[in-house]
Amino acid sequence: MAANTISPSTTFAVSKSTLHSRGCLIPICFPSKSFSTSISMSPVRSCTSQLSMTPPTVVEVDLGNRSYPIYIGAGLLHQPQLLQRHVHGKRVLVVTNERVAPLYLDNTLHALTNCANPNVTVESVILPDGEKFKNMDTLMKVFDKAIESRLDRRCTFVALGGGVIGDMCGYAAASYLRGVNFIQIPTTVMSQVDSSVGGKTGINHPLGKNMIGAFYQPQCVLVDTDTLNTLPDREMVSGLAEVIKYGLIRDADFFEWLEKNIAALLARDPAALAYAIKRSCENKADVVSQDEKESGLRATLNLGHTFGHAIETGFGYGEWLHGEAVAAGTVMAVDMSYRLGWIDYSIVERVNNILIRAKLPTTPPESMTVSMFKSIMAVDKKVADGLLRLILLKGPLGNCVFTGDYDREALDATLRAFSKS
Amino acid sequence: MAANTISPSTTFAVSKSTLHSRGCLIPICFPSKSFSTSISMSPVRSCTSQLSMTPPTVVEVDLGNRSYPIYIGAGLLHQPQLLQRHVHGKRVLVVTNERVAPLYLDNTLHALTNCANPNVTVESVILPDGEKFKNMDTLMKVFDKAIESRLDRRCTFVALGGGVIGDMCGYAAASYLRGVNFIQIPTTVMSQVDSSVGGKTGINHPLGKNMIGAFYQPQCVLVDTDTLNTLPDREMVSGLAEVIKYGLIRDADFFEWLEKNIAALLARDPAALAYAIKRSCENKADVVSQDEKESGLRATLNLGHTFGHAIETGFGYGEWLHGEAVAAGTVMAVDMSYRLGWIDYSIVERVNNILIRAKLPTTPPESMTVSMFKSIMAVDKKVADGLLRLILLKGPLGNCVFTGDYDREALDATLRAFSKS
Repeated sequence: MAANTISPSTTFAVSKSTLHSRGCLIPICFPSKSFSTSISMSPVRSCTSQLSMTPPTVVEVDLGNRSYPIYIGAGLLHQPQLLQRHVHGKRVLVVTNERVAPLYLDNTLHALTNCANPNVTVESVILPDGEKFKNMDTLMKVFDKAIESRLDRRCTFVALGGGVIGDMCGYAAASYLRGVNFIQIPTTVMSQVDSSVGGKTGINHPLGKNMIGAFYQPQCVLVDTDTLNTLPDREMVSGLAEVIKYGLIRDADFFEWLEKNIAALLARDPAALAYAIKRSCENKADVVSQDEKESGLRATLNLGHTFGHAIETGFGYGEWLHGEAVAAGTVMAVDMSYRLGWIDYSIVERVNNILIRAKLPTTPPESMTVSMFKSIMAVDKKVADGLLRLILLKGPLGNCVFTGDYDREALDATLRAFSKS
Repeated sequence: MAANTISPSTTFAVSKSTLHSRGCLIPICFPSKSFSTSISMSPVRSCTSQLSMTPPTVVEVDLGNRSYPIYIGAGLLHQPQLLQRHVHGKRVLVVTNERVAPLYLDNTLHALTNCANPNVTVESVILPDGEKFKNMDTLMKVFDKAIESRLDRRCTFVALGGGVIGDMCGYAAASYLRGVNFIQIPTTVMSQVDSSVGGKTGINHPLGKNMIGAFYQPQCVLVDTDTLNTLPDREMVSGLAEVIKYGLIRDADFFEWLEKNIAALLARDPAALAYAIKRSCENKADVVSQDEKESGLRATLNLGHTFGHAIETGFGYGEWLHGEAVAAGTVMAVDMSYRLGWIDYSIVERVNNILIRAKLPTTPPESMTVSMFKSIMAVDKKVADGLLRLILLKGPLGNCVFTGDYDREALDATLRAFSKS
C-alpha cells in the first residue's frame, strides 16, 4: 500500500472535501507545525457499497511489537476491510451500551462480518450507559457473555462507545482468559482524542476512580468521525477539555489554533473536528510511545485530573462528565501553578477564557469541600510513598512539570479558593 | 555475592544438614541429570537472631527485565534481608487466609519490618480459605483493603498461602492501580512446585476455572520449606500430582527418581521434599522462560488439567483439591494417549501405580458425566477457534505433545470409560 509521509515541517491541511459536511463551516487556519503522519493512499472499498471510500488518516502508536494504528476519518464504519484486518480468530464480542447500540451496533456487526469475513461470528453485550456503571458488577456481565458464548483465546473484543465502554471492554479483554485481542471504536470526542489511545483500561472503585485496571493495548483504534453527528452537545463539549489539555502541556501552537477555532469546534465544523482529533491523537501517541506505563512523562496527560477525579468521586460518578470535572480541575492546577510563581497571569486568563468559551465549568461543584478534595486526592494513583505528585504548568505556554516538589501552602490556598472548608 | 553454578552434567546433592530434619529419613538417590542452578554462598543473617542461617538454593526464572529468583530452603522466613531486598516502596499488603494467618502471618510481618526496614509499614488482609472463595467477591476485599489503606503505586503485595491466595493476590497486584509489585510466599507443596512460579494469576468464574486473570510476574518467590510442617496430609499429597506431572511431560529421570522416592516424599523426608521442589521449580522456570504467555510449550504444563478443571468446576470448587482433580485428569490423558497408540501400556501402568502409591485418585468422582465433561471442556482456555487442544503423552516416557490433531473417537472413548453417560 502506498503511503505519503508528511514531515514535521510541512504545512498540513485537511481536505474539507474528504469530510462529512454539516454546512456550518467557519474559517479555519492550520498551524505550520505538524507531526509525522502517514496517510493511506489506496482507498478501501466496501464490497457491498458503491460509495467512493475516502482513505483514513493514520496515526501510529509506536510500541514495538505492541504498536498499532489509529484510523481517523468519516464513514470508516462503512469500510469493512479496515476493521477486519485487525480481527484475529473467528469469534468477536462487541461490547457497547444502551445508548450507542441502537445507533451503531448494526453498522459495526455489518462491518465485522461483511465481505471477506463470512466465517466470523459476532456476539454482543449491551451494558447500561454511564460512569456510575463503570464497576465490577458491570464488568462481570462482559465475562458472563464471553464464557456463555464459549469465546476462546483467539477471539477479539470490540469496544463500541465512549470512554466508559472503552475502559471496561479493554480491562475485560486484558483479563479474559488472561488476555485476548481487542479493538477500540470510540464514538465520543472524549474517547476519540484521549481514552481509546494508549492502553489505559479499568473500572472505578467506590473510593476512587480507575483504581482497578491494566495497561493493555488494542490492535487498532477506529475513529469514525461520523459517529459524532449523534453526540449530545454536553458530551461533545466535555471532550474538548482533553483537547485543550494537549495544547497546555506540550503544544502551544495547537492551543493557539484552539483559541482561534473554538467556535468552529462548538459548531461541529467537520474539518475543525477532524484536525483537533488528529492532532490530539498525535500528541497522545507521541507521549505513550515514550512512556507506556506512566513512569514519568505520561503522567503529564493528567493535567487537571487529580482535582477532576476528586470531583467525580466526591460529587458522585456520572453527575459531572469526565471532561467537565477535568476542566474545573485544570483551572485549579493552573491557579496553583500561578500561586507558585511558575507561570504568568496571562496563561491563567487564557485558560479561563477558552474554557468559558467552550461552555465548560471553571469551578468545582459547590458541594465540594477542602476535606473532600484532600481525602480523595490521598488515594490518587500519582501518590508515591505518601507524597502527592501533581501536573502543574511551568514556564511559557505549552510547558508543564510532574512533581511532588511544591509548596504545600499553594495547594491548600488553591483548595480554599475553589471549595468551602 | 559469590555464587556457585552447577552445570547440567554435575551430580547435584542437597545437603541434608541444611534441611529441617523430621527424623524420618528414607534413603534417597539423586539422578545425575541436573539443571543450571546458582546457590548463594553468603549466609543472610537475621539481625535479631543468633541462629546460623543457611543460604537458600536459588532457581532463576529468566524473563529479561521481568526475571526473578525462587529462593528455596528451610527457615527462609527467618531471613528478613532475603525478603526485604525485593520490597519496593514503604508500604506492604500481606494477603493471606484464615488458616495460614495464625501460623505464619506474624513471622512474615516480622520478616518484612525487622532490621533494615524500620520505615516500612505493613497491612494485612485475611481472606476465607478455599477454592470456592477464589472469586470476584473475595478479590474485591483485597482492593477494599488496599484503597482504605491508601496504598500507592510503589507498594508491594505479598501472597502468603497456597495456590488460591497466590493466584488472587497476583491478579489483585496486576490490577491495583494498573499494576503494583508483588512477592509470592507459597506455603503448600502445590504452590511451591507450581502455581507460585511463572506469573499465571486469576480467579474462577462459576462457569470455568481461572477464566479471569493476568500473566503477571512476581519480584521473587520465597519457598520456606518449613511451612510444609503444618500442611495437612491431603494437601501435601495433592501437590505431588504436579510434581509427578513434570516427570511425565519432560523429565523421565525425575519420574524414575519419584518412583523410587515416593515413600520418602509421603513420609515428608525434608531432603526428598527439598529436592522435589527444586527440581519442579527448575522444570517450571525452564518452560516459562521459553514461553511466558503460553503460545505453545507452556501449555504442556497443563497435562491432565483440562479433564481436571472439568472435575473441579463440575463437582464444585473446593470439593476436590486441585491436585486430586489433576491426578484423575492425568490418568484420563494417559488413557487417551494409549488409545491413540501414542504410548506403550507400560506408561499407563507406571502412571497408575505412582498415583495409587501417592494416595491420589485415579478416576473422577462418580457424579461426573460425559456431557458434564464435554460442556465444561468446551470453554477451556486451550480451545482455539472451536477446537479443543489437549496435552497428551507421545513416545517414550518424558515426552508429550500439545495438539488438536487427534481422533475424536479416542476422546469419546476415554470420557465413556471414566464417567457415566
